[in-house]
Amino acid sequence: MVNHPPKSDWEKLFTRPLIDYSSLEETVRNVLEKVKEEGDMALFELTKKFDNVSLENLSVTGKEIAEAVSTLDPKLKKAIQTARLNIEKFHKAQLQVPGPMETTPGVKCWQKSIPIEKVGLYIPGGSAPLFSTVLMLGIPAVLAGCKEITLCTPPDTEGKINPAILFTANLIGIEKIFKVGGSQAIAAMAYGTETIPKIFKIFGPGNQFVSMAKELVSRQGTAIDMVAGPSEVAIMADETSNPEFIAADLLSQAEHGPDSQVLLFTTSENIVKQSIKEVKAQLDQLPRKEIATQALASARFIVATDDDNMVEMVNKYAPEHLIICTENYLQLSERITAAGSVFLGPHTPESAGDYASGTNHTLPTNGYARTQGGLNMDNFVKKVTFQEISEYGIFNIGSAIEIMAEAEKLNAHKTAVSKRLKRLLDNFGNDVQHK
Amino acid sequence: MVNHPPKSDWEKLFTRPLIDYSSLEETVRNVLEKVKEEGDMALFELTKKFDNVSLENLSVTGKEIAEAVSTLDPKLKKAIQTARLNIEKFHKAQLQVPGPMETTPGVKCWQKSIPIEKVGLYIPGGSAPLFSTVLMLGIPAVLAGCKEITLCTPPDTEGKINPAILFTANLIGIEKIFKVGGSQAIAAMAYGTETIPKIFKIFGPGNQFVSMAKELVSRQGTAIDMVAGPSEVAIMADETSNPEFIAADLLSQAEHGPDSQVLLFTTSENIVKQSIKEVKAQLDQLPRKEIATQALASARFIVATDDDNMVEMVNKYAPEHLIICTENYLQLSERITAAGSVFLGPHTPESAGDYASGTNHTLPTNGYARTQGGLNMDNFVKKVTFQEISEYGIFNIGSAIEIMAEAEKLNAHKTAVSKRLKRLLDNFGNDVQHK
Repeated sequence: MVNHPPKSDWEKLFTRPLIDYSSLEETVRNVLEKVKEEGDMALFELTKKFDNVSLENLSVTGKEIAEAVSTLDPKLKKAIQTARLNIEKFHKAQLQVPGPMETTPGVKCWQKSIPIEKVGLYIPGGSAPLFSTVLMLGIPAVLAGCKEITLCTPPDTEGKINPAILFTANLIGIEKIFKVGGSQAIAAMAYGTETIPKIFKIFGPGNQFVSMAKELVSRQGTAIDMVAGPSEVAIMADETSNPEFIAADLLSQAEHGPDSQVLLFTTSENIVKQSIKEVKAQLDQLPRKEIATQALASARFIVATDDDNMVEMVNKYAPEHLIICTENYLQLSERITAAGSVFLGPHTPESAGDYASGTNHTLPTNGYARTQGGLNMDNFVKKVTFQEISEYGIFNIGSAIEIMAEAEKLNAHKTAVSKRLKRLLDNFGNDVQHK
Repeated sequence: MVNHPPKSDWEKLFTRPLIDYSSLEETVRNVLEKVKEEGDMALFELTKKFDNVSLENLSVTGKEIAEAVSTLDPKLKKAIQTARLNIEKFHKAQLQVPGPMETTPGVKCWQKSIPIEKVGLYIPGGSAPLFSTVLMLGIPAVLAGCKEITLCTPPDTEGKINPAILFTANLIGIEKIFKVGGSQAIAAMAYGTETIPKIFKIFGPGNQFVSMAKELVSRQGTAIDMVAGPSEVAIMADETSNPEFIAADLLSQAEHGPDSQVLLFTTSENIVKQSIKEVKAQLDQLPRKEIATQALASARFIVATDDDNMVEMVNKYAPEHLIICTENYLQLSERITAAGSVFLGPHTPESAGDYASGTNHTLPTNGYARTQGGLNMDNFVKKVTFQEISEYGIFNIGSAIEIMAEAEKLNAHKTAVSKRLKRLLDNFGNDVQHK
């Protein structure tokens, strides 16, 4: 427990563990080069090496999908469907852009959301099937209207993909699913192979090799969603908060990985004590107890002098997830300036947003919440500006452009307007009408 | 002139010149390190070295601003004011986000646009004062509500900043203006010095040193707007288009720099011939004739078989600026899937968008238009998600979360919900009401 830390300590108190993948750079570069040069052959070879399986095919077949759909537990199917509808509803509303406007009579300007044509989604493998991430990446891609959606995920040692992943991808309409993982999957999507189409932007989480691969291909021109670090939660609590819920929420972050960041900010010393007690009690019942224990070793329990002090510290830290379960949670939420996603009140655990409330769970870590939000529809489209100027319009703003272009010594910029104005004057004199 | 290029030639035909700044990396790294370690002292020293002037102060004083405001040509002031109002109007409308919604009864979710607290704007020096870029970066920053806006621009050899830049910055309300340019300015904003505040995100164009510095600090956690390459225009024309206007528009791009990309796509061979003739005629009258001539040496005049073919080629190239001055320009514009900003009809020169129509002139080059749009309000805010779930809400979606969390083997995620559901059942049985 840290009591009333002075500002001079904040920098250190809120420093994340340094993530330096640079030692992996050469290994990952070699994988990228190999895939670029050898295409599918490299993917078969690397999958044998890293995933311990000799594949017949990189593509998931229709039969495999049908099997997954028919075998998956109906209860899980229904839960995924519930989540899907909420996520769809929340993301669909984000597609709106303001309509056309006249900035000056005759000068019509507008924005249009144009989908990114080709996107690639990466779903990590590992001990658990991250089908929720299929929802979070796939639904906005489909809603945006991306024409070509490619999904890559590593096969298990029998060459299979978890049925929950296949069911979810199929449910939302993703057809191109490939059995390839790690940095080789990122390379395949960035460069294209005989089987896997080259895409324009890659989305999705992954281990340090995947992160390094994403960073390297992004320097070569393939767009990426964001650079992801260890997951984080900060909770703001007061003496009215429920320590049992606080403990459950802290643990649900801690179980992600040994480097997960767990912070409790509160104005009540008593709540810290009770929450720690509850954490200990609940920890024993967790299958992932060991991981959570490691993460909790660097957890921070911080007592603030008052609400102002608490808000300032949280904004300084800029957490990925922020749970506010104080009595005045709505008031405090108004003052948050840096957080990825905010969970309000006693009945809003972070896991609601991880799975089913509708908001996206792909969020900025490592302080990036200072400058960016979580994944949303904006990440799957380009907002392209259009403008259409009438004769009357160029007559109205032409001289401003001429004067500014001349002052910036760009005379051809000026001429492009002058030629048009001259023709108008030749044709109409000063009698240009607004149509 | 290239007639009906087959698809197999497109890749090569639309390849941009390779921009490889890696040879600058060490030089720029040294500048960054120096500024990080020595702060203001490094800035004074580097400004003497690179800008040939010994400064007394890094900050622009109120007196300098007052002088600029009083001496600038009133006509230019008025033109800047016209542009400002249009840019403000167009960008202000982009601030809207969808209101709160219930994705499921009792599950309330919403997005909120929160300004990035501290932003830095870089305005390059050189032969001309780029006050238009002050408008394009500064207006959205102010509209977004960014609390701390810092502007850096290199001084001339007398230690002065061009009055048009100072007037414009002052007009839109930017107070912190510093006389520092190049990679040292990027370093100062990324790390902070005694005088220059550390910011979270850097915006603005610049030469190759500035670009390299932005890339390097972005790898260290400072956000940047985009990676900018040489400027580009593509024009789509048919036999009804005006060759005089086409030539003027091509030249207004060519005068930017010797590496500017200039392309004409048309279904009419005759228009190519007439446009080339017009380019030659207008070129002679340009002060920046030499630069434009160099750029034109690699200009491409491409004859398409028909509209479909023309649209496909343009989307493949993904130009920064696209002028469509065919008779059916509105129809063609509907089919554009990759461009930074689109200019429609005979009276809409690119220079309108560069200065005064209202759209932003900071746009994606080098094919980035496939995945991103130009600068807009989204770049100055974070869209943060909020959710507030009532008792009734968690009762409605709780079991879906529990089932999904269990299937992903994240049991603490499940527990965070179960604990809440249990308390509700203990208190109310199944009689949880929607409030």
